[in-house]
Amino acid sequence: MSDVVEHLTGLIRDRIAAVRARDVEALAEQFAEDVVIFDAVGRLRDQGRGAEVSRLETWFGSYQDDLGLGIRDIEIVAGDGVAFGHYLFRVTGTMVDGTEVSMWLRATVGFREFEDGWRIVHEHSSVPFDGATGEVLVGLEP
Amino acid sequence: MSDVVEHLTGLIRDRIAAVRARDVEALAEQFAEDVVIFDAVGRLRDQGRGAEVSRLETWFGSYQDDLGLGIRDIEIVAGDGVAFGHYLFRVTGTMVDGTEVSMWLRATVGFREFEDGWRIVHEHSSVPFDGATGEVLVGLEP
Repeated sequence: MSDVVEHLTGLIRDRIAAVRARDVEALAEQFAEDVVIFDAVGRLRDQGRGAEVSRLETWFGSYQDDLGLGIRDIEIVAGDGVAFGHYLFRVTGTMVDGTEVSMWLRATVGFREFEDGWRIVHEHSSVPFDGATGEVLVGLEP
Repeated sequence: MSDVVEHLTGLIRDRIAAVRARDVEALAEQFAEDVVIFDAVGRLRDQGRGAEVSRLETWFGSYQDDLGLGIRDIEIVAGDGVAFGHYLFRVTGTMVDGTEVSMWLRATVGFREFEDGWRIVHEHSSVPFDGATGEVLVGLEP
């Protein structure tokens, strides 16, 4: 079982380099065809690898060349063919309009093992908001 | 396997009545001792059933007697002893300051089977935000 945890931890860590390289194909490859996505911005729910590709392209397109990703506190719970994990991640960079971003988010991922390996069948990313003001808390630190 | 899916779907559905009844004990009972919580408001990460109890008490305390919960689109992926699920939920009610709330959120839950049954070991709830304005999108409909 610990081999699976190691493998899935590696799969999450691989995202750091792929985001830096803006490698949409490598990132999309981790997702199952009918993945259900709860993205941090824009919409309640999306479904399908195509939606994930579109989401990544929009994300990469909104940043200048310095987009970076840091990941910490990865925890994986793995069973036979089914697993989930959660972690915190920080997005850093300069948006095309010049805004500097350094923001911590949370992510939860659900995995299933298919014939050709483990893939993400569900991804939920978010930033909490202030219940009193309705503003997103982009300044939180873990 | 479908028995487990049915059982965990029931566990999620049970929350509706427990929230209406403000039954903190019944809700907290569903959580593992060391549950990791990514709540929709306030903080990036909390850990422990005590944090969940405190979160529920704050939530219930911020609403008048009409707090309601609706749940839809529950999907469960269950393996041997490990499962996860996701769903959309709507919170309705009147806050103590008189603000009327009707807001859709997303939730992802991770389950493990213990000797005395399945419990939630991870919960992630959120509302997406507008990437351009930084405001939380409380008006989205599924």
